[in-house]
Amino acid sequence: HAAFQDVNHMVIFGFGFFLTFLKRYGFSSTGFNLLIVVLGVQCSVLIEGLFYFLFEIPHKDGLKRITKAAVSITAVVISAGAVLGKTNPVQLILMTVVEIIVFHVSRWINSIYLQVPDDIGVMHVHLFGAYFGLAVSSCFSEPSPRSEKNASTPKSALLSMLGTLFLWVFWPSFNSVLLVDNKWEVTYNTYFALAVSAVTAFTFSAMTTKDGKFRMAHIHSAVLAGGVAVGYTANRIRHPWIAMILGLLASVITVLGSYCLQRCPNPALQIHDSSGVHFTFGFPAVLGGLAQVVLLVAENGTSLTSLGYSVMFHIGALCVTITMALITGLITGLILNLKLFKTTPATKYFEDQFYWE
Amino acid sequence: HAAFQDVNHMVIFGFGFFLTFLKRYGFSSTGFNLLIVVLGVQCSVLIEGLFYFLFEIPHKDGLKRITKAAVSITAVVISAGAVLGKTNPVQLILMTVVEIIVFHVSRWINSIYLQVPDDIGVMHVHLFGAYFGLAVSSCFSEPSPRSEKNASTPKSALLSMLGTLFLWVFWPSFNSVLLVDNKWEVTYNTYFALAVSAVTAFTFSAMTTKDGKFRMAHIHSAVLAGGVAVGYTANRIRHPWIAMILGLLASVITVLGSYCLQRCPNPALQIHDSSGVHFTFGFPAVLGGLAQVVLLVAENGTSLTSLGYSVMFHIGALCVTITMALITGLITGLILNLKLFKTTPATKYFEDQFYWE
Amino acid sequence: HAAFQDVNHMVIFGFGFFLTFLKRYGFSSTGFNLLIVVLGVQCSVLIEGLFYFLFEIPHKDGLKRITKAAVSITAVVISAGAVLGKTNPVQLILMTVVEIIVFHVSRWINSIYLQVPDDIGVMHVHLFGAYFGLAVSSCFSEPSPRSEKNASTPKSALLSMLGTLFLWVFWPSFNSVLLVDNKWEVTYNTYFALAVSAVTAFTFSAMTTKDGKFRMAHIHSAVLAGGVAVGYTANRIRHPWIAMILGLLASVITVLGSYCLQRCPNPALQIHDSSGVHFTFGFPAVLGGLAQVVLLVAENGTSLTSLGYSVMFHIGALCVTITMALITGLITGLILNLKLFKTTPATKYFEDQFYWE
Repeated sequence: HAAFQDVNHMVIFGFGFFLTFLKRYGFSSTGFNLLIVVLGVQCSVLIEGLFYFLFEIPHKDGLKRITKAAVSITAVVISAGAVLGKTNPVQLILMTVVEIIVFHVSRWINSIYLQVPDDIGVMHVHLFGAYFGLAVSSCFSEPSPRSEKNASTPKSALLSMLGTLFLWVFWPSFNSVLLVDNKWEVTYNTYFALAVSAVTAFTFSAMTTKDGKFRMAHIHSAVLAGGVAVGYTANRIRHPWIAMILGLLASVITVLGSYCLQRCPNPALQIHDSSGVHFTFGFPAVLGGLAQVVLLVAENGTSLTSLGYSVMFHIGALCVTITMALITGLITGLILNLKLFKTTPATKYFEDQFYWE
Repeated sequence: HAAFQDVNHMVIFGFGFFLTFLKRYGFSSTGFNLLIVVLGVQCSVLIEGLFYFLFEIPHKDGLKRITKAAVSITAVVISAGAVLGKTNPVQLILMTVVEIIVFHVSRWINSIYLQVPDDIGVMHVHLFGAYFGLAVSSCFSEPSPRSEKNASTPKSALLSMLGTLFLWVFWPSFNSVLLVDNKWEVTYNTYFALAVSAVTAFTFSAMTTKDGKFRMAHIHSAVLAGGVAVGYTANRIRHPWIAMILGLLASVITVLGSYCLQRCPNPALQIHDSSGVHFTFGFPAVLGGLAQVVLLVAENGTSLTSLGYSVMFHIGALCVTITMALITGLITGLILNLKLFKTTPATKYFEDQFYWE
Repeated sequence: HAAFQDVNHMVIFGFGFFLTFLKRYGFSSTGFNLLIVVLGVQCSVLIEGLFYFLFEIPHKDGLKRITKAAVSITAVVISAGAVLGKTNPVQLILMTVVEIIVFHVSRWINSIYLQVPDDIGVMHVHLFGAYFGLAVSSCFSEPSPRSEKNASTPKSALLSMLGTLFLWVFWPSFNSVLLVDNKWEVTYNTYFALAVSAVTAFTFSAMTTKDGKFRMAHIHSAVLAGGVAVGYTANRIRHPWIAMILGLLASVITVLGSYCLQRCPNPALQIHDSSGVHFTFGFPAVLGGLAQVVLLVAENGTSLTSLGYSVMFHIGALCVTITMALITGLITGLILNLKLFKTTPATKYFEDQFYWE
């Protein structure tokens, strides 16, 4: 019960306030986040129930089902971060329904054809969410670069810090919630990965900015990177220093990613990404997936044949997840931009007043 | 322990910030909420102890007692919402002490004469709190309709959203905390009722406002309605769709109630109710009480005689609670308006500066 | 797991926002708090591990170790409160490392030579943190008395209230987290001490200010005093009224302390203490230590010889902690003010802009 409560708290409250950094978009950030979470959890429970019904798997108890649904919905919340301020509620609702269905399909493909255990499969949420969101975002018109609304004030950045600290505190619960055993090891490893991430975030932020000052946006994203990266492997890491190295690398990748993507000459990578989900969740999740392979090789260095298969399956699962996310995200993005959905004009982006009295 | 912590968190923090929507009343909303909760919990434990002593019931362990006290105090917090900004601390303290005593008396009458089990009796908090608060509020002079202080700014509404999300997240714990068995079913049903409430709140808010925009006040109150309505029956609902229908109805009633009460020609119903406790807690609680009767009839459709008694007892318990709340609330309101208590003048309503340096 | 989560939440989130009362220092308050907590926890786990290794004590499980580390780090967080706004991150990091080492050394001295049980020894965090912080603070130059930055706005005070309420809610978990038995009694006693503190804080705040208004700074500090004071003895108090009296005394001492220290003619006591840790944590912790001795005498009034030893040991432990805190704090303060560390000039105190983009 307490574990479900933690994840619920994190998804509703943590992500809701994590996304309040835009100065005029606080109502929509928290309100629409609540809307897509509750819709998505209901969808997710329904789809999971249908799957169990079709494959005649005995039902799990209800609390376990909503906990799993609450974890899965993180994918949608992350995608919503990528298009934050650019979609209207109807588009968000449609995106939620499509994404949660596709995510479950992708998870089942991984589970059935690539032997990914279910608890690891669910951890693909960050990867799936980030790339789905980026693909959707690529179909929306870019906001005017001179727009002043796409910025944060000290007050809104502080509220967003509040959300970030919530996510930080509850991340160990998030990583351990679906596991049956090794629960405390996951908590322990995730905590250390997050701790090292936070220290690295401050260090690298000071190193990549002029005058050695800290940038709040770096701190927001990089303190969480360790938790994302360690998600796949937290239950198999035997020594905390491995988690710490992962946290360090994830945080470095996030800060450098945010630095590079802003100066990136490649327009394909330079998709407008409102809350930086590419480097906050995408990069660390890829790193975590690769780390899983490296750990696998390091652990089972002897039997080469079975190892080769395992490695192939793991990399295959990553590729399947990213590919499905990108393709279905692109399709969803194209559908959302049909005139039918009354697309928000680019001048009204990042405005609460367009949706709230 | 974790369950007590959740309820404590919800009452102190969730309600404290739920009531911060007034632009110049944030200090008093959170501060006085803390004051009345801590006073009320101590009173409640004392009264309960006295009752156990008088009736020679063996003592329960301490944690259980303060948990129950923390649940009971919700009645006072809700009443304080109805008179938010109009009372001074001395009046609030007196109201707290009187209300908590009367609430326990009402609960014992229900428990002894109407066979209401204790865990259901405590769930009358919302009903009792809302109508007690309204009766008290009717004795206070109305604020000037041109007053600008009785309004919220985007910042204060966002802080209030923070409180609302806290209440939303912890409501399943609140409904299940006093039960011994069926705990997870209550969590599960409450979660679904709340989820449907939230979706309905957005839908109906867009439908009742001009231009199809959302109104923050609707969202604040209607997302919680499902949790209130399902409080009496969450441990006996077998299928989540029943909870979902209850959540839907509760949310509709709340939004329509808020729409109608503002245009209401009947001065008896148009009592000034600062935070809308009438439609946020009163209506959904009445609905929940009636749903309990409907469920009872649906379950035991065969033995008509005993069923008739049960139905009578249930409706009787609702009536006793509402009647006691209204009468004692009115008396308390009259007492509070004695000159002795230095009533706040209507021009100083909703002002932190009147109480804080 | 839930207990660790509570303490983690309290330290990262509660203290982070507890310290946001300065109007232009919100980013640094929350950000640097996160930084010193994560650094300190890692240091603390390392030092504890080294100690276990040297003395060949069998290892405890990992979750227990980080819980203990999270409790110990409170000392550093409190000290950081005393120098809030005056140190740069490099100074804070050095202070964290030195303080956490010295705190563990002081705890071991108490444990080995003065027979203080380990769970009580850790409760010296408040005492140690407050006096270490004051000693460090005495080495920094005072801010200009006409500076307007060393003040709070209603918004920042409200965010700080948010942090205070978090600390208040989680304090029972904090006091009980390291104990193996009597857990719920500690929760119960701490809750009552805190409840009485809160009521007393409001009463005494109104009594010591002009016009009988409340002062937010009093409420911030005095509502927590009971939790601090009861920390040493919560597991041995048999009747809640003893905890309630302790809470009352602690709250009175805090409000009077804050009243007197501001008018204090003695420059030694009038050290600039940004967040008032002297009366918020220092005085109540001393009171708690003395209460422990009084309780000891009251319980074992018969065997005078052994009682004398016990009393001596207890008072000795308090003196050792305070002395070590003051001396090492002074040395640390002198080191931090070396030119090497690029001391922040007094005109740039309490400014986010000096550290953040």
